[in-house]
Amino acid sequence: MSEILSREYLLLVQEAFEHSNTAIIQEQVQELHYADIAALVYELEDEQADFLLRSLDTEIASEVISELEEEVRKHFLKNLPYEKLAEYIDLMDSDDAVDILKEQPIQIREQVIATLKDRDKAKDIIYLLPYDEDTAGGLMAKELIKANINWTVKQCIEEIRRQAEKVEKIYSIYVVDNNGILKGRVSLKKIILSADDTLIADIYEDEELIFVETYKEQEEVVTLMRKYDLESIPVVNVQGKLLGRITIDDVVDVMQEHAEAERQAMSGLSSNVEEDDTIWTSVKARLPWLVVGMVGGMLAASVTNMLGQPVILLVSVLANFTTLIAGTGGNVGVQSSSIILQSLANKSVFELGTLERLFKVLIIAVLNGLILSAFVLGVCLLFGYDAKVAFVVAIALFSVILLASLMGTITPLVLDRFGINPALAAGPFITTANDLIGLTVYFLIARLIYQI
Amino acid sequence: MSEILSREYLLLVQEAFEHSNTAIIQEQVQELHYADIAALVYELEDEQADFLLRSLDTEIASEVISELEEEVRKHFLKNLPYEKLAEYIDLMDSDDAVDILKEQPIQIREQVIATLKDRDKAKDIIYLLPYDEDTAGGLMAKELIKANINWTVKQCIEEIRRQAEKVEKIYSIYVVDNNGILKGRVSLKKIILSADDTLIADIYEDEELIFVETYKEQEEVVTLMRKYDLESIPVVNVQGKLLGRITIDDVVDVMQEHAEAERQAMSGLSSNVEEDDTIWTSVKARLPWLVVGMVGGMLAASVTNMLGQPVILLVSVLANFTTLIAGTGGNVGVQSSSIILQSLANKSVFELGTLERLFKVLIIAVLNGLILSAFVLGVCLLFGYDAKVAFVVAIALFSVILLASLMGTITPLVLDRFGINPALAAGPFITTANDLIGLTVYFLIARLIYQI
Repeated sequence: MSEILSREYLLLVQEAFEHSNTAIIQEQVQELHYADIAALVYELEDEQADFLLRSLDTEIASEVISELEEEVRKHFLKNLPYEKLAEYIDLMDSDDAVDILKEQPIQIREQVIATLKDRDKAKDIIYLLPYDEDTAGGLMAKELIKANINWTVKQCIEEIRRQAEKVEKIYSIYVVDNNGILKGRVSLKKIILSADDTLIADIYEDEELIFVETYKEQEEVVTLMRKYDLESIPVVNVQGKLLGRITIDDVVDVMQEHAEAERQAMSGLSSNVEEDDTIWTSVKARLPWLVVGMVGGMLAASVTNMLGQPVILLVSVLANFTTLIAGTGGNVGVQSSSIILQSLANKSVFELGTLERLFKVLIIAVLNGLILSAFVLGVCLLFGYDAKVAFVVAIALFSVILLASLMGTITPLVLDRFGINPALAAGPFITTANDLIGLTVYFLIARLIYQI
Repeated sequence: MSEILSREYLLLVQEAFEHSNTAIIQEQVQELHYADIAALVYELEDEQADFLLRSLDTEIASEVISELEEEVRKHFLKNLPYEKLAEYIDLMDSDDAVDILKEQPIQIREQVIATLKDRDKAKDIIYLLPYDEDTAGGLMAKELIKANINWTVKQCIEEIRRQAEKVEKIYSIYVVDNNGILKGRVSLKKIILSADDTLIADIYEDEELIFVETYKEQEEVVTLMRKYDLESIPVVNVQGKLLGRITIDDVVDVMQEHAEAERQAMSGLSSNVEEDDTIWTSVKARLPWLVVGMVGGMLAASVTNMLGQPVILLVSVLANFTTLIAGTGGNVGVQSSSIILQSLANKSVFELGTLERLFKVLIIAVLNGLILSAFVLGVCLLFGYDAKVAFVVAIALFSVILLASLMGTITPLVLDRFGINPALAAGPFITTANDLIGLTVYFLIARLIYQI
């Protein structure tokens, strides 16, 4: 496999560029898998990448372009005449074509569509363009094999032959009635093993047919395909008419993007930064949330100054426990958020209602709070702290665990409701907020008990 | 689709159990997709689930059992005679069979294998058992369609017919030579569209053949299948002999498990707890890391007590900034860890060396540190803090950002090297450690500047 793609290979190609040795580029690189060529493009300088892509066969180039990350692709396509882009688009599946055209200015988009040689593809693209990219409609391709329920196996094979060029991978053949309504599916295996004059109606499966409507969210498509172990899923409109199909490779990409977006949100990075990005990109991705944390820290300093200083001046050891209180609030909040994330990712059909949820969270928080407060109370007394100090810390800890649990539960649900990535609630946002809440509660309880 | 699986349906089934109405259970539930029956099992009481599984047809039950989560399955199988388990195993794919047998005590495992009616399956299972479940060998199934390179299309179709029962889903037919060495693949589409007397040798593809060796890690299988958009990948031994195949549904499951394990590790949960688990399970999953955080917090209290109290007694406003310092350390550490996680998840062939990595991390940390320290210095002076206090805070902040960046980078790499989930480094572990380091640095700098 891709073991040829070593750092040595990269150096070889880069050297070939420096000596304008186009033979290596055209002959050697062209032999690679398109995914490997894309990986190579990421490592090259902009002009080198442009040169490489332009010198590839149109067919290979169109596959590489489909594969590229949006940013890199946009950069390459910016300086390309629209006629050339149309040549690439002519060779792509409709779903990839639409994704790429959506990245272009409307004028270019329309020029390309008008220039396409494959007028059926143009029609498919125009059909697919309006769908929101976060829905099943936005994921589907129009390329699929459709068989009429009244056909014979022979007619079906003829259809496969007709579409063979267009539909690269066939998993199932979808069976429709005269009105185009999806009735079932038949596997290629069954087609191979059936006699030519067998009726599709006699061999297709209609039980356990899993499909998805165009308006359903991406997440639902992922859940369905994962749950039912599907490699492709048919997409229908509300009337049940077959419109397209979504293949597992697109769903795998969606899963990957989700995992990355969640990691990024949970750790307070403002964009999907990778290790090999430039230093400036890395700094920019990290700074925004660090500044938020900094502002939070300064607010914490103000809270301590205003609420805390009067008691700290009197009982200075109270300052020892600010990190414990703030840290526990953060940890509890992140745990609670993450359990909600988990349940949002695996939407169960037997879901708890919001009130049931909060009630359960509260009970768990009370139990954890009691155990941890008792533990800390014991340790404090053991370490020779004043009993009053120990009680302040224990009571504050208990309250903070309760508050952080509720906040950690509610925040991701609210974010999700408003279409914001709920994983943000498991990141620095909630940690910072819990720091502030924790300190406020701590010093208020301290002042109450010390009556200052 | 699975919209029948509502809470009402669950109530209906539970009521049927209470009235011992086996008709509903056997007739209605049996019609569901096995993945839906599994979802139902999770919602039932233990005895109800046992009863349901035992009353299903053996074939359906065996699919449901393959689908169940390990814990639930183990519970059900514990009280099952081994002869019955053998009946289920007889109907499973070899990869699922091996996963389930590995969960059983060795004695049961051997009794089951000895009892299997399908002796070929028994051989396959014995062959697969030794592979580590985290490797390609541990993921592969022996069921596949293999065609000799010298066959005709007709012979190949006969082979498909022979294996039709065993190999449920056929994606590609793998082409081998007389020694069983993998030479290439041919798609079902091509088989359908070729004349019966065509030689496999004339139509198979040998370019861009992606395969994986048995000893390769799970992660590599995921990366390959995702990168090359594969729905199945052949597994070979070091000599290149075809041994089995891995299908995309198993890889999707691996991706899902990884995402869950990472979420869990980053948020300090000790097991994959879900919202609908029992209260006690939830408490148990949360407590361990909270206790670790608690111990960390008590250590932080000790650090503040020993190192901090002397300066706090003198300059009590220094207590205001402990949360800022500790919090920033945590945030920076988590960001750094998460960038390493990202690069571990997308292993690039053009990887940076460890020294290059650390050097880059250091530069980014210095830049972030300078910007944030300057910001905080300005705000402190603006808020009327003493210049000495402001400088202590700014210098401590800079040092903490540097240290936390390095720790956040090194920890996941070290954990990964030792085969421990590196995502642990982005969780409460590093936050707690950074709290301690941050406070120590802060108070040491304060005492240095105030010369106490």
